[in-house]
Amino acid sequence: MRKKIISARKFIKPSFTYLVEKKRDGGEFTDEEIRYIVDSILDEDLPEFQQAALAMAVYFQGMSAQETAVFAEEMMLSGEVIDLTGIARPKIDKYSTGGVGDKTTLVLAPLAAACGVVMPTMNGVDEEHVISNLDKLSSIPNFNPILDLKGFKAQLKSVGCTFIHQDEEIAPVDAILYKMRQQTGTIPSLPLITGSVLSRKLAEGAEGLVIDVKWGNGSFIKDLEQAKQLARSITRVGRSMKRRCVALVTDMNQPLGDTVGTGLEIKEAIELLKGEGPEDLQELVLKLGMEIVRLAGVAGSTLSAKQTVLRHLKDGTALEKFKLMVAAQGGDTTLIDNPNKFPIAKHIRKLPAPKRGYVHTINAGMIAEGVHKLALRKNGKYDPAVGVSEIKKVGTQVKQGEPLMMIHYNDEAKMEEALEYLKTAYRLAPKRPTPPELIVERVA
Amino acid sequence: MRKKIISARKFIKPSFTYLVEKKRDGGEFTDEEIRYIVDSILDEDLPEFQQAALAMAVYFQGMSAQETAVFAEEMMLSGEVIDLTGIARPKIDKYSTGGVGDKTTLVLAPLAAACGVVMPTMNGVDEEHVISNLDKLSSIPNFNPILDLKGFKAQLKSVGCTFIHQDEEIAPVDAILYKMRQQTGTIPSLPLITGSVLSRKLAEGAEGLVIDVKWGNGSFIKDLEQAKQLARSITRVGRSMKRRCVALVTDMNQPLGDTVGTGLEIKEAIELLKGEGPEDLQELVLKLGMEIVRLAGVAGSTLSAKQTVLRHLKDGTALEKFKLMVAAQGGDTTLIDNPNKFPIAKHIRKLPAPKRGYVHTINAGMIAEGVHKLALRKNGKYDPAVGVSEIKKVGTQVKQGEPLMMIHYNDEAKMEEALEYLKTAYRLAPKRPTPPELIVERVA
Repeated sequence: MRKKIISARKFIKPSFTYLVEKKRDGGEFTDEEIRYIVDSILDEDLPEFQQAALAMAVYFQGMSAQETAVFAEEMMLSGEVIDLTGIARPKIDKYSTGGVGDKTTLVLAPLAAACGVVMPTMNGVDEEHVISNLDKLSSIPNFNPILDLKGFKAQLKSVGCTFIHQDEEIAPVDAILYKMRQQTGTIPSLPLITGSVLSRKLAEGAEGLVIDVKWGNGSFIKDLEQAKQLARSITRVGRSMKRRCVALVTDMNQPLGDTVGTGLEIKEAIELLKGEGPEDLQELVLKLGMEIVRLAGVAGSTLSAKQTVLRHLKDGTALEKFKLMVAAQGGDTTLIDNPNKFPIAKHIRKLPAPKRGYVHTINAGMIAEGVHKLALRKNGKYDPAVGVSEIKKVGTQVKQGEPLMMIHYNDEAKMEEALEYLKTAYRLAPKRPTPPELIVERVA
Repeated sequence: MRKKIISARKFIKPSFTYLVEKKRDGGEFTDEEIRYIVDSILDEDLPEFQQAALAMAVYFQGMSAQETAVFAEEMMLSGEVIDLTGIARPKIDKYSTGGVGDKTTLVLAPLAAACGVVMPTMNGVDEEHVISNLDKLSSIPNFNPILDLKGFKAQLKSVGCTFIHQDEEIAPVDAILYKMRQQTGTIPSLPLITGSVLSRKLAEGAEGLVIDVKWGNGSFIKDLEQAKQLARSITRVGRSMKRRCVALVTDMNQPLGDTVGTGLEIKEAIELLKGEGPEDLQELVLKLGMEIVRLAGVAGSTLSAKQTVLRHLKDGTALEKFKLMVAAQGGDTTLIDNPNKFPIAKHIRKLPAPKRGYVHTINAGMIAEGVHKLALRKNGKYDPAVGVSEIKKVGTQVKQGEPLMMIHYNDEAKMEEALEYLKTAYRLAPKRPTPPELIVERVA
């Protein structure tokens, strides 16, 4: 329930038109004005068209760190704020702006749990570029993505992690605003993203937050400088809300790992949980995992953080936590013991290189779009067997006709449609390109 | 009825979100995109919150002359476009951004009619700062401000001018947008104002348009540069719509004339129609009147335009047209013959000068607010007897206790409230100030 904060000083409600004009003219809202705006959205007093005008004014004029912190705090308080004080272990959450082929959260949540860190993750609407973690987990038969808040807390206590849909009691004002922002061109506003992320993540009960801000053609942030700004904005505002925050700015100019799909990605996540799998993902899991255990206070130094993470991958405890999590949410764990039991597509064909050369660039967004066309069923669910694997990454040398990737499909027509996107995603060149830097910046 | 324009090239409808994002990023809409936006507002397909986001994006990013012209044209075509080709005389309309104590349109419409120019004026929502011409005319018993389009045309043919509420068939999309803009801080956007004015004024059947753009503390445009820009924007876009347009940028840093009210202002208008009355209004009527007769082709040279205007004021034909117009709309013309018959307030008191000195500045907006408090009844109508007169203008020398104006009132409590505004409006100083320039610029 909303906790009302009673101010000693009397606040005279301004008109909504005045508030829009104030922001339009670059004014800074007082704490009370922000509280009033959030309250009025919750109470359905502030009409949607004025919300939209306000969001666009914020897009152009920005918000200060103080405004953004109060905005995040008030949106958090607009709904349930989960109390995890009953769990003694440290609680650290992870947020990613979303990327193509990214399996890190699927690996990091059980890994953190194995290291003694609770990760109270809920899946918000914006956290994945196309295929969400819950879409991926739906390839495991009977996996249940819905828990009530009581069940959520109980599983965090027993297992240490969950993968569930964000509860609708969490930051309801953010949910209202987010939907409106998607249709008004106001998603890419740093203070609005910051407020949205922090209101939800901190409502989930985390004491600290590790953020992965991705930039590139597979992220909604195309510009590196903007990604750095967002990383700084979230960590700064998070700290002013008395939460520990670390952000990494990472590359999303090609898919992460070798696969994009649902079942295919879960299989790759299982490899990673064994300390195996593609190098880029191994590195990202290690670096983000180290941030989590250090932020949690489980490891003091960089070296001890690295050792802690690697040990829990090598000794099987991270994978064991993944199995426990799947079991707790009703999923069939025999697929985890034997990944060959994952459904297999009727057809597998290669995407042939049209000429010899080096993979110069890959448009990850285009690959995501292709897999979307390939795997999405009419009912809005993904075919668990369908996707792409063995993706040749930037810098790889290929001969003409050699596969750039393998396409797993069940439907010829969908494959033909997908092929157009997948083909277009690749650019080959005669010279070896400079490989992109995976982790660009750390912001603490 | 809406006239559909059929394009030879096929137009693929973009999403509204795309259109908002395009303008947010400073893109220029194609003619078809603007047509699609206006059509979608008319058809209630474009949700209000996306209209608001779009308007705010236009506020920040502007629109080109081409975009604005198509926008005005399409909004005009969203409703009835009145065909006045059945009237042989030239048709020139006048638009003012609105000012305190401005009686010029009340004088210019019958004056133009006397000179053989038809003025097809309807009263839009935004045309007056506080008290509209129709509010003022309501001080004449039985004056009817509503005519249907047939009656409108008939009166233009017989008398040559009308004062009526804007018909709801005129530019309905503008009416929708205007209401939304008032509540979203998007009124002061030059292309939106330009589109709004031209869509309505040209739908009224005018061949040419004389525009009075006022700047100052009694106008919604506080900045001279912005007023000049608006004058240029309307004339440029109007010309590209094949209409003759002239604009004057004029001073609104003090009330026009000696009175603010309803009946009091009509009495002043009657003086002006006789070629008498306050100097500033006489000058403005003359200058705007000259523009009208020249634009209409009734007078060729500046000298002949001046002679034409002055002759019709001196010889009583302008006043006669005013009487005919009032009679045609059901009003009691005996008040025009004998202005002493206008209702008189129970009390008249002076606003005393608090010290000796020169009137240095007058906040015209504050005077308007004061008269509003003084004269507005609970039913939303103005008391015809109430207002202020004998306003001392900027540059006038006063002794302590001498009246700055006379306050006509019927209600002691309202007077006390109004007094606060009226007092605050005046600043006296020991040195004679430079008088403000009434006509700052002519844009043709």
